[in-house]
Amino acid sequence: MTESAAHVRVMEETAAYWRVLFDNPPFNIVDATIFEGLQDLLARMDASPSLRVVVFESGNPEFYLAHFDLTGKTGNIMTAVGPSGLPILMDTFVRLTRSPVVSIAKIRGCVRGVSSEFVLACDMRFASRENTRLGQPEVGVGVNPGGGAAERYGYVNRALPDAELDGFVDVLARRIASFDRRPIAAVKKLVNDVALPSADRLLDALIAFQTALTWPEAQQRIQALLKRGLQRDGEVESGWPALLGTLLDET
Amino acid sequence: MTESAAHVRVMEETAAYWRVLFDNPPFNIVDATIFEGLQDLLARMDASPSLRVVVFESGNPEFYLAHFDLTGKTGNIMTAVGPSGLPILMDTFVRLTRSPVVSIAKIRGCVRGVSSEFVLACDMRFASRENTRLGQPEVGVGVNPGGGAAERYGYVNRALPDAELDGFVDVLARRIASFDRRPIAAVKKLVNDVALPSADRLLDALIAFQTALTWPEAQQRIQALLKRGLQRDGEVESGWPALLGTLLDET
Amino acid sequence: MTESAAHVRVMEETAAYWRVLFDNPPFNIVDATIFEGLQDLLARMDASPSLRVVVFESGNPEFYLAHFDLTGKTGNIMTAVGPSGLPILMDTFVRLTRSPVVSIAKIRGCVRGVSSEFVLACDMRFASRENTRLGQPEVGVGVNPGGGAAERYGYVNRALPDAELDGFVDVLARRIASFDRRPIAAVKKLVNDVALPSADRLLDALIAFQTALTWPEAQQRIQALLKRGLQRDGEVESGWPALLGTLLDET
Repeated sequence: MTESAAHVRVMEETAAYWRVLFDNPPFNIVDATIFEGLQDLLARMDASPSLRVVVFESGNPEFYLAHFDLTGKTGNIMTAVGPSGLPILMDTFVRLTRSPVVSIAKIRGCVRGVSSEFVLACDMRFASRENTRLGQPEVGVGVNPGGGAAERYGYVNRALPDAELDGFVDVLARRIASFDRRPIAAVKKLVNDVALPSADRLLDALIAFQTALTWPEAQQRIQALLKRGLQRDGEVESGWPALLGTLLDET
Repeated sequence: MTESAAHVRVMEETAAYWRVLFDNPPFNIVDATIFEGLQDLLARMDASPSLRVVVFESGNPEFYLAHFDLTGKTGNIMTAVGPSGLPILMDTFVRLTRSPVVSIAKIRGCVRGVSSEFVLACDMRFASRENTRLGQPEVGVGVNPGGGAAERYGYVNRALPDAELDGFVDVLARRIASFDRRPIAAVKKLVNDVALPSADRLLDALIAFQTALTWPEAQQRIQALLKRGLQRDGEVESGWPALLGTLLDET
Repeated sequence: MTESAAHVRVMEETAAYWRVLFDNPPFNIVDATIFEGLQDLLARMDASPSLRVVVFESGNPEFYLAHFDLTGKTGNIMTAVGPSGLPILMDTFVRLTRSPVVSIAKIRGCVRGVSSEFVLACDMRFASRENTRLGQPEVGVGVNPGGGAAERYGYVNRALPDAELDGFVDVLARRIASFDRRPIAAVKKLVNDVALPSADRLLDALIAFQTALTWPEAQQRIQALLKRGLQRDGEVESGWPALLGTLLDET
C-alpha cells in the first residue's frame, strides 16, 4: 500500500456507498500525501458508475484533519495542475463539489484552515456535538484562507450527540445509496450552477494565500507557532487558535 | 363556480387584504385546477390597485398542499406559456414573487415538492410548530426539483405554536394592509433584483425536471409509490418520504 | 471641538484599536453631523497604518443610533459625492466595508432604518440580549430602505447578556489588534469581492429612496409620525414602529 493510500483509506461498504478514513498520525496534518490520496479517490469515484455517496471520517477522534502542513511537506499541490485545470489544492475541492456522487463529512475532533475548506467542499457536514472544533485561523497566522473558505450559518448541517452520529450518518448514506444516480447528479449540477464560486474567484483566494505565505511577518508567526509546539505537541495542536492573540509576545 | 375557483377560494377580508384557501380533497394534491386557480388569482391581483397582501392557507389541516399530481392530471402547466413568457408552472411562481402585493404562506400540514416551491415563491412563510412537514423529496422519486426549490436556513420565517398562528398572521397582514402600495412595490423590486434567479436558471431546473420524468427508473419509482398507496391512502400520503429509501425493494 | 467631532467621538485605546462613541442627544438621531463625523473618521482611518480595528458604541444606552433625521437636518449627504464617487450616505457605508480596518458594532438600544444600514456595513455586530431593538421600518413610513438594507439570518453575529457584552467585544478587538494588517485587508477584499453589492444596485436603492421621499403619501406619514412625537418624545422615539399600522387613523 502506498503512503497516500494508507493516509486516505477507502472502504467499500457497498458498490453505492463508500467510507473514507483519514489516518495520518499523529495529528492528521494535511500534507501532500492527503492530497495524493484524495486525487486517487476522485479518479476511482469517476470510474465507478454504481457509486452514490462517500462518507469522510477520521481514524483519530481528536483530529478530523488538523490543518495545512507548515513544515514544507505540501509537495506540488500549489504548483501542479489537476484535471480541472486548477492547481491541485483547488482542483481537489472543486472536483469533489462537482462530482455526481454525494459527499458527507462526518466530523469528530479538530478541523482548521484547509481542513475546514475540505469539509465545506463536501455536500453535507454532520458533527459531534461534544467533540468538534472548527476554525479558519489563517488571519491570526498572518495569511488569508486560500482554499474556498466560507462564512455562513448552516456551516454544519446538523450537530448530533456523539453517540448518535455514526448511526445517523449511516442511515442517511444508505438512503442516498438507494437513490438513482442521474437525479442526484442533476440536483448537484443545478445547485453548483448557482452556488459554486467561479474559478476566477477561487484563484483570487489561492493566489492571495500564496502571496501571503511569502510575507516576512507571516513567516515570523508561522515560525513562532512551530516553536511553541505546533505539529509536535498534542496540547498545542488541539488549542493553538487560543495562542494567536499573543503569538509575537516575548516568552 | 368553476372547479379551479372551488379549489383555490378567494375571500376578500378587505380591499387591501385577501385570504386564499386551498381546498382540493382529499389531500390538496397540486393538479391543473390548482394552477388554473392561481393564474386566475394573479390576474385579479394585477387588476386590484387597493390590494396589499394575500395570505395562502389550507382548508385541510393535514395537507397544506400535498405534492405534484403523479397520475397525469397536470394539464398544460409545462407545455403552455403564461404572461411572463415562461411555462405556466414557472410563470405562476415568478409572477407571485414579482407582484407588488405581499404574499404570505400560513402553513399547517404537509408541504412537499412543488408545494414547497410554491411557499418559497411567497414573500413570507409562517408555520405551525406542531403540525408542519416540509420536504423536497424529488430525488428519492427519481427526479430533480423543477420549480425553483431552495435550500436555506430561514426557509420558514417563524414557526409558531399552532394556537397562535392564525392571530399572528392576521395581525401582520392587517398591518401590511395599512401601508402604502408604492413602497411595498419598491422594496419587493429591490429585493427581487438581487434575489430572484434569472429565467435561464429557472428554466434549467424545469427542463431538467421534464427530462427526468421521462427516465425509465424515475417512472419505475413513481409507479412503485402509487402502488404503495400514494394519492389514495391517507397514511401513505402523510408519510411517504420515509418509504423512499426502500422503494424498489420487493414487497 | 466641532459639533460633528462631539457627536462621533474617537478614543484611541491603542494605535491598533480605536473606540468610537455616538453622542448626539437626546436620541442619537442620524443627521448631517453624524455623517460629517464618520467622514472625518474614515479619513483618519485611511491615514493610520497601525490601525486594525474600530468598535462603534453609543453613549446613550437607550439609543445606539435612532434613525434618519426626518426634520430636514441631513445636509448634503444625498446631494454631495464622497471619495468613492458615490453620494455621501452610500460612500460612508461602502468605504467602511472596504476599509482594511475591521469594524465592530457593539449594540445597545434602538437601531432603526439608516442606523440598521450602518451596523450592517460594519464587519461584525454584537448586541445586548436584554437591550437591543433592530428594525427597518421604512415601508411603514411610506418609503423604502435606501442605504443598503439586508435581510438575513445572522444579522447579529452574537447576542450576549448585557453584562458580558463589553468584555467580550474588548477581548475580540484586542485579539484582532494583535494581528497583521495585510492578511486582514486580504480577507476583507476577498469577502467584499463576493458579498458587497455593486454600485449599480446600491444606487438603485438610494435613488428609489429619494424618489419615495417626494411622494405625498410618504410625506403624510412622516408628518403624522412627527405630530405623534417622533424626535421629541422619548416614549414615542423608543416604540414608534408599533404605531406604523395605525398611522393614518384619526386621533
